[in-house]
Amino acid sequence: MIPVFPLNQTPLDAESLAIQDIVRTALLEDLAQGDITTDSLPKLARLQKQALFRVRQDCVVSGLTVAGLVCQMVDPALVFTPMLQDGDVAQAGKVIAQVQGAMASILKAERTALNFLQHLSGVATETRRYVEAVSGTDTRITHTRKTTPGLRLLEQQAVLHGGGVPHRFNLGSCVMLKDNHLQVLGDINPNQVIAVAVKTLRAKISHTTKIEVEADTLAQVQQAVEAGADIILLDNMSPDTIREALSLIQNRAIAEASGGISLDTIRAYAETGVEVISTSKITLGVPSIDVGLDLE
Amino acid sequence: MIPVFPLNQTPLDAESLAIQDIVRTALLEDLAQGDITTDSLPKLARLQKQALFRVRQDCVVSGLTVAGLVCQMVDPALVFTPMLQDGDVAQAGKVIAQVQGAMASILKAERTALNFLQHLSGVATETRRYVEAVSGTDTRITHTRKTTPGLRLLEQQAVLHGGGVPHRFNLGSCVMLKDNHLQVLGDINPNQVIAVAVKTLRAKISHTTKIEVEADTLAQVQQAVEAGADIILLDNMSPDTIREALSLIQNRAIAEASGGISLDTIRAYAETGVEVISTSKITLGVPSIDVGLDLE
Amino acid sequence: MIPVFPLNQTPLDAESLAIQDIVRTALLEDLAQGDITTDSLPKLARLQKQALFRVRQDCVVSGLTVAGLVCQMVDPALVFTPMLQDGDVAQAGKVIAQVQGAMASILKAERTALNFLQHLSGVATETRRYVEAVSGTDTRITHTRKTTPGLRLLEQQAVLHGGGVPHRFNLGSCVMLKDNHLQVLGDINPNQVIAVAVKTLRAKISHTTKIEVEADTLAQVQQAVEAGADIILLDNMSPDTIREALSLIQNRAIAEASGGISLDTIRAYAETGVEVISTSKITLGVPSIDVGLDLE
Amino acid sequence: MIPVFPLNQTPLDAESLAIQDIVRTALLEDLAQGDITTDSLPKLARLQKQALFRVRQDCVVSGLTVAGLVCQMVDPALVFTPMLQDGDVAQAGKVIAQVQGAMASILKAERTALNFLQHLSGVATETRRYVEAVSGTDTRITHTRKTTPGLRLLEQQAVLHGGGVPHRFNLGSCVMLKDNHLQVLGDINPNQVIAVAVKTLRAKISHTTKIEVEADTLAQVQQAVEAGADIILLDNMSPDTIREALSLIQNRAIAEASGGISLDTIRAYAETGVEVISTSKITLGVPSIDVGLDLE
Amino acid sequence: MIPVFPLNQTPLDAESLAIQDIVRTALLEDLAQGDITTDSLPKLARLQKQALFRVRQDCVVSGLTVAGLVCQMVDPALVFTPMLQDGDVAQAGKVIAQVQGAMASILKAERTALNFLQHLSGVATETRRYVEAVSGTDTRITHTRKTTPGLRLLEQQAVLHGGGVPHRFNLGSCVMLKDNHLQVLGDINPNQVIAVAVKTLRAKISHTTKIEVEADTLAQVQQAVEAGADIILLDNMSPDTIREALSLIQNRAIAEASGGISLDTIRAYAETGVEVISTSKITLGVPSIDVGLDLE
Amino acid sequence: MIPVFPLNQTPLDAESLAIQDIVRTALLEDLAQGDITTDSLPKLARLQKQALFRVRQDCVVSGLTVAGLVCQMVDPALVFTPMLQDGDVAQAGKVIAQVQGAMASILKAERTALNFLQHLSGVATETRRYVEAVSGTDTRITHTRKTTPGLRLLEQQAVLHGGGVPHRFNLGSCVMLKDNHLQVLGDINPNQVIAVAVKTLRAKISHTTKIEVEADTLAQVQQAVEAGADIILLDNMSPDTIREALSLIQNRAIAEASGGISLDTIRAYAETGVEVISTSKITLGVPSIDVGLDLE
Repeated sequence: MIPVFPLNQTPLDAESLAIQDIVRTALLEDLAQGDITTDSLPKLARLQKQALFRVRQDCVVSGLTVAGLVCQMVDPALVFTPMLQDGDVAQAGKVIAQVQGAMASILKAERTALNFLQHLSGVATETRRYVEAVSGTDTRITHTRKTTPGLRLLEQQAVLHGGGVPHRFNLGSCVMLKDNHLQVLGDINPNQVIAVAVKTLRAKISHTTKIEVEADTLAQVQQAVEAGADIILLDNMSPDTIREALSLIQNRAIAEASGGISLDTIRAYAETGVEVISTSKITLGVPSIDVGLDLE
Repeated sequence: MIPVFPLNQTPLDAESLAIQDIVRTALLEDLAQGDITTDSLPKLARLQKQALFRVRQDCVVSGLTVAGLVCQMVDPALVFTPMLQDGDVAQAGKVIAQVQGAMASILKAERTALNFLQHLSGVATETRRYVEAVSGTDTRITHTRKTTPGLRLLEQQAVLHGGGVPHRFNLGSCVMLKDNHLQVLGDINPNQVIAVAVKTLRAKISHTTKIEVEADTLAQVQQAVEAGADIILLDNMSPDTIREALSLIQNRAIAEASGGISLDTIRAYAETGVEVISTSKITLGVPSIDVGLDLE
Repeated sequence: MIPVFPLNQTPLDAESLAIQDIVRTALLEDLAQGDITTDSLPKLARLQKQALFRVRQDCVVSGLTVAGLVCQMVDPALVFTPMLQDGDVAQAGKVIAQVQGAMASILKAERTALNFLQHLSGVATETRRYVEAVSGTDTRITHTRKTTPGLRLLEQQAVLHGGGVPHRFNLGSCVMLKDNHLQVLGDINPNQVIAVAVKTLRAKISHTTKIEVEADTLAQVQQAVEAGADIILLDNMSPDTIREALSLIQNRAIAEASGGISLDTIRAYAETGVEVISTSKITLGVPSIDVGLDLE
Repeated sequence: MIPVFPLNQTPLDAESLAIQDIVRTALLEDLAQGDITTDSLPKLARLQKQALFRVRQDCVVSGLTVAGLVCQMVDPALVFTPMLQDGDVAQAGKVIAQVQGAMASILKAERTALNFLQHLSGVATETRRYVEAVSGTDTRITHTRKTTPGLRLLEQQAVLHGGGVPHRFNLGSCVMLKDNHLQVLGDINPNQVIAVAVKTLRAKISHTTKIEVEADTLAQVQQAVEAGADIILLDNMSPDTIREALSLIQNRAIAEASGGISLDTIRAYAETGVEVISTSKITLGVPSIDVGLDLE
Repeated sequence: MIPVFPLNQTPLDAESLAIQDIVRTALLEDLAQGDITTDSLPKLARLQKQALFRVRQDCVVSGLTVAGLVCQMVDPALVFTPMLQDGDVAQAGKVIAQVQGAMASILKAERTALNFLQHLSGVATETRRYVEAVSGTDTRITHTRKTTPGLRLLEQQAVLHGGGVPHRFNLGSCVMLKDNHLQVLGDINPNQVIAVAVKTLRAKISHTTKIEVEADTLAQVQQAVEAGADIILLDNMSPDTIREALSLIQNRAIAEASGGISLDTIRAYAETGVEVISTSKITLGVPSIDVGLDLE
Repeated sequence: MIPVFPLNQTPLDAESLAIQDIVRTALLEDLAQGDITTDSLPKLARLQKQALFRVRQDCVVSGLTVAGLVCQMVDPALVFTPMLQDGDVAQAGKVIAQVQGAMASILKAERTALNFLQHLSGVATETRRYVEAVSGTDTRITHTRKTTPGLRLLEQQAVLHGGGVPHRFNLGSCVMLKDNHLQVLGDINPNQVIAVAVKTLRAKISHTTKIEVEADTLAQVQQAVEAGADIILLDNMSPDTIREALSLIQNRAIAEASGGISLDTIRAYAETGVEVISTSKITLGVPSIDVGLDLE
């Protein structure tokens, strides 16, 4: 429960309580019945070794803190030393961390540590591609709730490591009013339904919570602005339509574009001046980064 | 802890005890502080609706059982009815399941259920691509331990749904003797080190456990065969070298090819007659499948 | 894990996954080694009884859903029927729920169910006092993070049942910039430190997240407004000072008053026009409500 | 799971395994998604600070050990040094503990540590009031099972810190025979029902377990004594009636008074000579103690 | 978490919350990665079968409730019908329960259910041997804390099923003062050390808690009696010495004999008139009972 | 979660993540409400002591690593020093480990540590008896799945400590085809049913997984061999029948004998040349070893 990093390392911050649970689950998956190969060769427990985590392709690194925690949980005597920080760019061949200690322990930690690094660096690297595609604009890139079950906390951090910003963490973090929610207020004048819903919601939620309204049409954008939405999700609109939406909004709400935006088209969207673009493409099905562990 | 599926549904099998933990973790991620949008519109709890899970691209479906469990944990009164079974092929537009019940509950279950379906169907579909690429040969496709932390059990099932076969589940399921393990027996004649290691291992492990030996060279293949390895991992070899390896092995061990095999090259590998090809490409960084939930 | 309420009852909503853990912890506290009195009198298991949860003083009820879950976890065959809803006012003597089933099960559930009802109805009732004290104004009453460890989710709901509104749930829900945070930006011009900090924060946080700035002086209020804070916490100010603060803010941010506000003074604060008053007095050390269970 | 207190501190005793779970739950409540304010100002992680826990009103301190555990779980590098011990009296303004380390870690631990200290010191202080009200008599003050769900272990310790003594921890710790239990033995002569029940119970329970019988009338007291009860709960009786009860009991059982006893009336009860007075007023709805953390 | 027994069965009582955790742990041990034999033969899931739990030697049955819970957790559609109750005597060949449902589910539950039944019936049966050996006397048989780690709750119940009575459940249930505890009061007159310790303890513990004092000599027995011990553990004494001890005690405390008492010698001990005999022989290393599951 | 063994000790290997859960469960069983005797004598916390774990009968030791973990979880300041290793033979009277630290902590850890040592050393010692009974032959001794619920991982290790070898860990580790499984393929020619089942299974399982077939008759043995079973379980056969079976098998499969084999008869079985004998007698109902803790 309580990581005791070697003194030369930054203590994990407090949210690591949640991260520890994620790491523990991953380790039990691989090691609940032991490592029968390594455990049957007892010399491995006595042999002290050093091994290098090395990326085999250019990437933005994410998962170093988690990999360190993996090593520590497998064997507190392992000394894990990151050479970079999460969020740093690494060229192919770069050593991003080293680990020292009993070879048996290194072998047991290896795969789980790498699985985190490969996936999270994949998220960070893909995010960086989107961030770079809009460079020079004021548009920020963020994720959606389309994340890998069980890994949202880490994937959200990886998005930050890639230069993106967080979106709402979960269904409790921000109101998101969608068509489906509006259906229930059916006997209300369609021109007023967003206004009624926003008013209903505002009365119940915290003053610290924002309301985001999904708009599929400019008419809905107009309604959402007038209803006092804090954020308007411009869903599946073309860059031109988004320009019209922004001229309707007139900075009275934050505009977020989403839906069908690819690496090819994102710059055109960003150039509309939309504040935020959210995309599932930086968390869902992202290519993983090749990372290996080389024993010296 | 104890799912009570509506009577017209198949009971989850016993390993669902482990799957339940995975689903619960995913739901708590999204819902630990409630769904403030839905919870602030109480009419949603009273409105009975039906919604359809629909795939938006051709795929092999995986995750239906899990999606059903998501719905049930959110609200046991939701009735989830799969239209296909995990492992079935679905064309774009196909309804793969429907769910009926309180609209509030459907909205709360939606994203988590979809996140599982999108990722697992991605794994199953990618697996199918590799399986089809070797069709007509006797070679089987399997995964590696490069899986998403926390989801190995589900990803292994998705590989099966895609027509692949399982590899060892974890470090306790099968011996895998690698270079790193051999290093510790350093003062032994290099020509005998595999034989000595296999003998050491065989004396300690269960008679129900196989020994797989990783071979990088034909000399190692020869040694592994003579040492009595049950499986030989032909690592990073060309198809031609694999053919030579197979002629050395002469069916005295199962041959598994791995390392740098892509969808383009896999058929050439399969045509060597190698029994098994393992690849991380069917679990790591696989493209996800677009699945949506349409409220009727 | 999965509550199966009798069909005539509302399903618990999804956040009950978290609430179930709270209830389970409470039940294990009381029953981990069984109820040796009841278990030693086996006739109690066979006797079917009905019992009435009755409040013994005027109150706002909170905890009925939780009490129902307590009964169900002790014995799924118990039928718990609420007579009111959480948030309803009850006069002394009012039956707020009934439970039917094996007397042994009722006795085992009794104390835990009452402990929740007594505490949570206390929170709701105290909140109502504060809400009524400001009635006729537009000021809303909310809680702080001074809650009972382990019960924040339920206490936040009880505040709503009492007519209050939620504040940020936890340290991840909203930025709150305090003096302590500003200290670290020490070499910055004191007149600009809030502006710099807000800008730093805004660049890192989600567009769905608000920034609240604590201000102890009017100068800080001015700085916070100009820095673009979404919410300004007017800390430990008199009503007159708050009026001045509000005239500085000019609706460019939400104003929240906090610190040293009692039931006696709250109306004077509300009459300043401040949008929100937060107080720990509705969660911390609130008097509990006397609720009993009468066996018929 | 395993706290590693700095060497100059007392190790937590073994029941801390249960307390660790309570603290972990509380920390996850506040920090599961991180502290977005502190985490966005990285200088806070590097700044080393000292802060003082100071009580702002006279009190009996309880919760220091728990507060230390909170600090340690947030960051094992924090050094928490108590200035007093749980159970000590502190005057308003007294520093009761100091904590040193990364300012980010201190800020993350602050609220949770204070929430424990405020509530538990409230319980200890209220207990002390009751204990002092009976000073000079032989009567001891104890709690009931009306405790805050999830916190019974800590509240029971706080009662001890306040000078009280424990009551049965839970339904498995001691037999408590109440009216409701007696109902089931309905066809038995009312004059013998307690005797029959005690005999039934005695045959089944451990010889290490006591039997307490609740008596509402002197007739029941008489029966309970004759039945061999170890403890008789004199429920809702006046001091005069309790005197009569005591003269019936003649030290053949321990007498415990309970029900409707307030700080005003408790001395009159104690002066009857009753051994124990139990009251929910020292755990349920007790005023909390104002404790703050001052950064130096 | 919440068992839903078929309607014709007794609901599990509340302590089943703890028992559910034990059963879940046992099932995950066997089934965390599924049952690869059964899962690979899908016809087994469709085939409805009935199977009979049958004892293959004379025994006292214990574990039926647990076996039912095992079946239910594996598949809630399994119908488990006990033919006897825990605590009943069964002759070799007797069917003690039947289970109906999918053959796959029966096969998955089989081994875990039997492992509980075999061990717990072993405890109950061994207890019965000791109970019968003292039949006709007033001496009761109880267990010690020498139990199987993780199974104390179930083993304690099995002792009851065998006709024994419970001892203290754990270190929090009763004071047990041993030599080791007395050492710390070293500068006290040896003739008074027990008196001092009992007085110290009595001041701190609940009035619902008894004090047991271990005595190795008659002098210690005398001291313990005079100190007011509730129970005196006569440790490793011969029957004759116990007689002397009892004559010293004169019913002022409960006498418990323990230490080196076997089935052969126990009657001689019981005939001394000692109230309780405790032995580890009924929980530690007891022979298991042969129970099988016959598919019809 | 993370053991920090004193530097002079071997780090626990990674599977200790699972073992830690077992130990934590055991400690909470005994200490969830504290040790009221020890906690009420505060001098015990200050007194530094050393104590010796001593076996009181000849045995093979198992559980030392676990006992060390028990001590560490109770109090990380306890220093536990094993004098032997798990698997070593100890003569009666031998000190197998010492522990140093606060006497209170030693007393709290004592019983739980001993309970593990007594049971696990019992398993190791009984295993050794069977192993010695077959000494000089090539037959290996292994366990079955008839293990104590919750302790399989530790009991499997104890079997190794006693000189045995592991069997499949659980239902996911190896296929075991039994009569019950064959029933479902009912319309198949009885002479071919094993062949069909093996073929069906082989197509679905991992190439790393073996298939074991239970055979009750020589005809079944013949079928299993021809079907390509990896292992054949010769169930309840006499040594003579096993000889015949072995001559049928001709080393084409591993032969395992099981069923009704006792310490008296096992040598006759081993002399048949069967590779493996499995027996529940080394895990189920094994006599425990007497181990004590002597305070110096």
